[in-house]
Amino acid sequence: MSEHISKQFDAELETARAKILAMAGLVEEQFGHAMQALEGGDLELIDKVIETENQVNAMHVEIDDDVMHIIARRQPAASDLRMVLTVNKVVNDLERIGDKACKISRRAKQIYGGGRVNVPRMSDLTYQSNIALSMLRTALDGFARLDPSVAGTVAREDIKLDEEFKAIQRQLITYMMEDPRTISLALEIIEIAKAIERVGDHAKNIAEYLVYLVKGIDVRHSPVEEIEKQAR
Amino acid sequence: MSEHISKQFDAELETARAKILAMAGLVEEQFGHAMQALEGGDLELIDKVIETENQVNAMHVEIDDDVMHIIARRQPAASDLRMVLTVNKVVNDLERIGDKACKISRRAKQIYGGGRVNVPRMSDLTYQSNIALSMLRTALDGFARLDPSVAGTVAREDIKLDEEFKAIQRQLITYMMEDPRTISLALEIIEIAKAIERVGDHAKNIAEYLVYLVKGIDVRHSPVEEIEKQAR
Repeated sequence: MSEHISKQFDAELETARAKILAMAGLVEEQFGHAMQALEGGDLELIDKVIETENQVNAMHVEIDDDVMHIIARRQPAASDLRMVLTVNKVVNDLERIGDKACKISRRAKQIYGGGRVNVPRMSDLTYQSNIALSMLRTALDGFARLDPSVAGTVAREDIKLDEEFKAIQRQLITYMMEDPRTISLALEIIEIAKAIERVGDHAKNIAEYLVYLVKGIDVRHSPVEEIEKQAR
Repeated sequence: MSEHISKQFDAELETARAKILAMAGLVEEQFGHAMQALEGGDLELIDKVIETENQVNAMHVEIDDDVMHIIARRQPAASDLRMVLTVNKVVNDLERIGDKACKISRRAKQIYGGGRVNVPRMSDLTYQSNIALSMLRTALDGFARLDPSVAGTVAREDIKLDEEFKAIQRQLITYMMEDPRTISLALEIIEIAKAIERVGDHAKNIAEYLVYLVKGIDVRHSPVEEIEKQAR
């Protein structure tokens, strides 16, 4: 490859990486806003989160198109190809995280639509979403620095997050049983808790792809000990 | 490209396509079995569905690895490249469908673990799962025949499936309110209905990728009318 072509290729690859990091920043913010809006019953912020969906979707389509063109024109190999294929996968997880942020906001709109409501287990949801947000930041920070060692931490946190979800669900079942009039509201909260739990799953996916990207080892479907070992 | 290399490339691409169709057949069967086992309370079949997860996960990893090697060695372009990138995406949807089948079976195990139970809204779940299964078959059949025209049908069915889910959820809320002792069981059923609804979403994703594969047009995030138009 001539130096000129090689430089151009590096630039294209860097652009794709920069775009995915920009998309990551956007959905991270979207998720943070969704939780903030839920906590404060802020209808304006709720709408803002939902409106961001179009922007996230456009980035999803654009980045996939970039991937296609980079492969077609540049025929990347080895670690460059792994980067491009990782981008092709990670973009889906980011889009799903944005989707969950919207889902939380739609539920929040439903909850606050009729006026002020005391959201049951709100402090638990905040605690749970802080874990998910921290997982997401850790995974994305690892992706930006090409540091796969974060995957072990993220996988461990995901176990904690799943347990948090189950605890919230159990508490809401008790709440519903004590007062069946709260069933609809409690179901909305369970859906929100589930959406937060799924954000953690996507952060874990991103961290796993990072191990593949840097080390060439596929740790998806592996137990946490194996992920920790390979991520080191 | 010499004829020899070209033939080898075609064979590799055909192998990747055959593998993804085999994986598709496996998860379609897994989902069908999960519903059958739920309906009949068949604990043996429930375990069989759960055990299939390892096989599906192995195919997931293997096909992604194939994709990487085909691109690295063969540097496909145009429609061949679209095929490879589509495989890279579709494999994720298939893995998720297998995951949903397992989830349904784990919930079924929970429900039947303590003996015979009358599953509320079982006939509705069967009806709902028949829509999802038909969507999945239509999408996969389209993929096998490289016929994107199925995407419109699948997108329309997905709207119906979402409505079915909401109807089941509403009925279960009434059921829980009438007898709060049924709350835990009803929540399991809602989770199952949600998993079925998600299978439909993945079938829709596959149908949308098919439009991209054959026509080079990205219809994800498009309204159903646009999908129908582009799929024609």
